[in-house]
Amino acid sequence: MRTLQVDLGDRSYPIYIGQNLLNDPQWLRPFVKGSQVCVVTNETIALLYLDRVLALLDGLQVSTVVLPDGEAHKTLDVLSTIYDRLLEDRHNRTTTLIALGGGVVGDMTGYAAASYQRGVDFIQIPTTLLSQVDSSVGGKTGVNHPLGKNMIGAFHQPNAVVIDTDVLSTLPPRELSAGIAEVIKYGLIADVDFYQWLEQNVERLMVCDTDALEEAIERSCQNKADVVAQDEREGGIRAILNLGHTFGHAIETAQGYGNWLHGEAVATGMLMALDLSAREGAITAQEVERLRTLLQRAKLPVVSPEDMTEQQFMDLMAVDKKVLDGQLRLVLLDQVGAASVTNQFDVENLKQTLASI
Amino acid sequence: MRTLQVDLGDRSYPIYIGQNLLNDPQWLRPFVKGSQVCVVTNETIALLYLDRVLALLDGLQVSTVVLPDGEAHKTLDVLSTIYDRLLEDRHNRTTTLIALGGGVVGDMTGYAAASYQRGVDFIQIPTTLLSQVDSSVGGKTGVNHPLGKNMIGAFHQPNAVVIDTDVLSTLPPRELSAGIAEVIKYGLIADVDFYQWLEQNVERLMVCDTDALEEAIERSCQNKADVVAQDEREGGIRAILNLGHTFGHAIETAQGYGNWLHGEAVATGMLMALDLSAREGAITAQEVERLRTLLQRAKLPVVSPEDMTEQQFMDLMAVDKKVLDGQLRLVLLDQVGAASVTNQFDVENLKQTLASI
Repeated sequence: MRTLQVDLGDRSYPIYIGQNLLNDPQWLRPFVKGSQVCVVTNETIALLYLDRVLALLDGLQVSTVVLPDGEAHKTLDVLSTIYDRLLEDRHNRTTTLIALGGGVVGDMTGYAAASYQRGVDFIQIPTTLLSQVDSSVGGKTGVNHPLGKNMIGAFHQPNAVVIDTDVLSTLPPRELSAGIAEVIKYGLIADVDFYQWLEQNVERLMVCDTDALEEAIERSCQNKADVVAQDEREGGIRAILNLGHTFGHAIETAQGYGNWLHGEAVATGMLMALDLSAREGAITAQEVERLRTLLQRAKLPVVSPEDMTEQQFMDLMAVDKKVLDGQLRLVLLDQVGAASVTNQFDVENLKQTLASI
Repeated sequence: MRTLQVDLGDRSYPIYIGQNLLNDPQWLRPFVKGSQVCVVTNETIALLYLDRVLALLDGLQVSTVVLPDGEAHKTLDVLSTIYDRLLEDRHNRTTTLIALGGGVVGDMTGYAAASYQRGVDFIQIPTTLLSQVDSSVGGKTGVNHPLGKNMIGAFHQPNAVVIDTDVLSTLPPRELSAGIAEVIKYGLIADVDFYQWLEQNVERLMVCDTDALEEAIERSCQNKADVVAQDEREGGIRAILNLGHTFGHAIETAQGYGNWLHGEAVATGMLMALDLSAREGAITAQEVERLRTLLQRAKLPVVSPEDMTEQQFMDLMAVDKKVLDGQLRLVLLDQVGAASVTNQFDVENLKQTLASI
């Protein structure tokens, strides 16, 4: 059992990481301030864990919303169904929303909490490795638009994040791998020791070894929390958390949300970012191969979709949130363990990267 | 020409009030930080003032969105059309949205700005008296839900507010009256001198006397800005700005958005709030009559819709944002010029108020 504090002044909050946390109300109840809660989950997770969470909420007025499962449903229309339930059940400003699920449930519940009555409390119970190490930290919430991912949203911090590592035992292997992609990212952008640790332990993560999972989750969350504490609203440094994401979002958008998992697209996108970093001379070609090997060990894709053209990539990347006054900016590695956002790269190198991966 | 500063730390902004401001770029251009702007207006205002505003934006990448006119269109679906335009025209995080219109345009544009890419800049050019004195100050943005008004939204402050009093010459008399209702509110809740000034000058406002309008707008904005500066996110005192609004929202919801103007519903709602305040012994019955007379001079309704039952009022008021843990709270007068939010009132008195007005 580990506790991490995300330090954001009066929006600070704890992250609890451990086994069996969903059988004990002490991690959840202190963060419910009023008498109303609304648990938002999806149809897959509802069958597995909803009853267990409801048992922790005895004595409160509890509503539940069960969303369809998958990134394809992270839309304004589906978001609306959360507002509908809150209003039908007369939730007021003192209500607390609880996100029980992966990144899609977390992003949508967080955004519903940010916007319902101009802002109510929420708690995250992330049930995928990816959401445990990524979307549960940092306060980014939102939904997709047909023309771009996460284009509608808000910054809204949770009151607490409860990470029960036991829930990963029911996670499909492909989703576990997708989570490991984001774990690897923290090593690449900020923590070379952790990157080496991952090279030694990735197979332990693949079989859900509890100690290895707790270690990986804690170090990922800590790395992310450190970056977010420096730059809550992404004016600068925070953008390095998007290593591989500009490429990855283009893949996700082109393939239709949900066909490639977010972590899979990020894996391939990170390899592209390192390939471009190598072409720009910041790192060696060996470092690109080193990442390729690690991604392959984690059963992650290392080649972009066959049917995607270079022009499609360029068009889709042009609407990325990091574009500033028409200039595409990308997160590139300065070295393994350090990254920065830049528009200083040769477009010919970018085209070669797109052609080669 | 008057300038007012709304004091909110790093979210402070100026309000410019005067004649002919829409013919001079100096009030607008310093607040556009990037090279992209998107002007959001409605079909009525577009015909009157859109060209004038576009002329101020020479040299920038300008998109325009023309919304249907009226409160009935303040919905998530119509909001979506703003996101569509922004994404089709590839607006990035440095874009500035400009709200050119009344409260509906201001609220929706502000909320689009709050949520597009998790927050971009915006500027208000309010074109109704009501939006000039009310919705352009304080950062409340949002849209309606079929089950309640302004239930989805955010706090998001503009970079600047440009109030050109000349635009009121094209405002229908009924809408001018609706604006005067909110002006009267500031006298009732916070400024007894201003209330007396209004009793002396209401007819000058009704004929759009420029000096009287500038005075009324400045004092209203100043009173609102003072309250908002104390309590930006409505944890306490700010709620007094909702005098008459709980009753008024119930009327608007019951009648369908747009059939009663917001200001008209607030006028009748304020009379109900004063009637209840008198029944509770805080003010005299003469003060109720004094307000009734002033509202009638401003051609505002002083009787609730014939077809609304007491039960309908009670049901609709139960979803008000001021409800806390099931307890209805109302803004009542302590005396003319001072108000507070309370759940301490006799429900029988409330029923008598609902029956009598």
